[in-house]
Amino acid sequence: MLHNSPSLTRLVGELKKLPGIGEKTALRLAFSLLRSRSDINSLAEALLELNSRVRFCSSCFSITEDDPCAICSGERDDSILCVVEEPQDLIAIERSGAFRGRYHVLHGVLSPLSGVAPDDLKIVELLRRLDVLPIKEVLLATNFTVEGEATSLYLSRLLRTRGLKITRLAHGIPIGSDLEFVDSATLQRALQSRNEV
Amino acid sequence: MLHNSPSLTRLVGELKKLPGIGEKTALRLAFSLLRSRSDINSLAEALLELNSRVRFCSSCFSITEDDPCAICSGERDDSILCVVEEPQDLIAIERSGAFRGRYHVLHGVLSPLSGVAPDDLKIVELLRRLDVLPIKEVLLATNFTVEGEATSLYLSRLLRTRGLKITRLAHGIPIGSDLEFVDSATLQRALQSRNEV
Repeated sequence: MLHNSPSLTRLVGELKKLPGIGEKTALRLAFSLLRSRSDINSLAEALLELNSRVRFCSSCFSITEDDPCAICSGERDDSILCVVEEPQDLIAIERSGAFRGRYHVLHGVLSPLSGVAPDDLKIVELLRRLDVLPIKEVLLATNFTVEGEATSLYLSRLLRTRGLKITRLAHGIPIGSDLEFVDSATLQRALQSRNEV
Repeated sequence: MLHNSPSLTRLVGELKKLPGIGEKTALRLAFSLLRSRSDINSLAEALLELNSRVRFCSSCFSITEDDPCAICSGERDDSILCVVEEPQDLIAIERSGAFRGRYHVLHGVLSPLSGVAPDDLKIVELLRRLDVLPIKEVLLATNFTVEGEATSLYLSRLLRTRGLKITRLAHGIPIGSDLEFVDSATLQRALQSRNEV
């Protein structure tokens, strides 16, 4: 132990569990905290508060402090349900302001290699909600990764028999992009799905 | 508030105070923590433990859990004192294993623009230690930044009258470097200070 402090070593160990934080960054964060003692306490309190207050909505499985969450209990379009991988995807879509329907958070994607099977996701819960809610369209907004696409394919096959409209987010050129730097696969999709002006 | 959770907003706010962590990273860290609830508690505990246990050594002002620290109370070479800006600089030098003397942590650098004057650093404490310890050489190991160099110059002028040997760390090519990618100023210094083989 180079810094003669078991509690510093312990904190560095805890910080290193976080994504994108290695030994050096953890040590830098710890020293930054040591410079303002009151921040250490308020960070610790914020963590404990998060742990005691935040839970998952029993309906859509997004994070919330009140169950059901504000979206599930609010006035929204009941005919469309957006299925996302994680609560942060829901936040991104809400931030866009372009979706007024309901959500369902899967809490992961199918990944046989990591041992994630359909039973590990909130799929049974999704089917149960579709039995109850007057949903007409399911927007599968999983990520455009191999696992995200596979999960989306799995769900579309599963829901096919229910006579629902199944949609995916559109592919295309991101707003503000330089054509020169857009990858060929995206450009290909954008050409295929070109719109009349 | 996009995520309907005041405690998540609060945690994100606290995390954003840390260096190099913005809104998006803070949110990513918070969600990563939410995935393993036990980690939230152990991180909070580690923070509180750090706050209650770690203090500054009353002699060298490095961080420690016991006062005086292990270096100040240990068997070290009393003839040489290494002056550093921050405790993490001390850790870096200790890690090198090439220094067996004592340390003194200034807790900052002189910076008129940020309003840091000599009185804000542990300089009076440094002079007091020099009165007591049988120091023959002071190694000014402040960083090679404008402020670090200025602080080093200030200290060397202050200590000149005491008949001490004042040294700085050597400039040169970092071990394992490709000459091609070394900046000209460093190469210039390395040429001037070339060694006979």
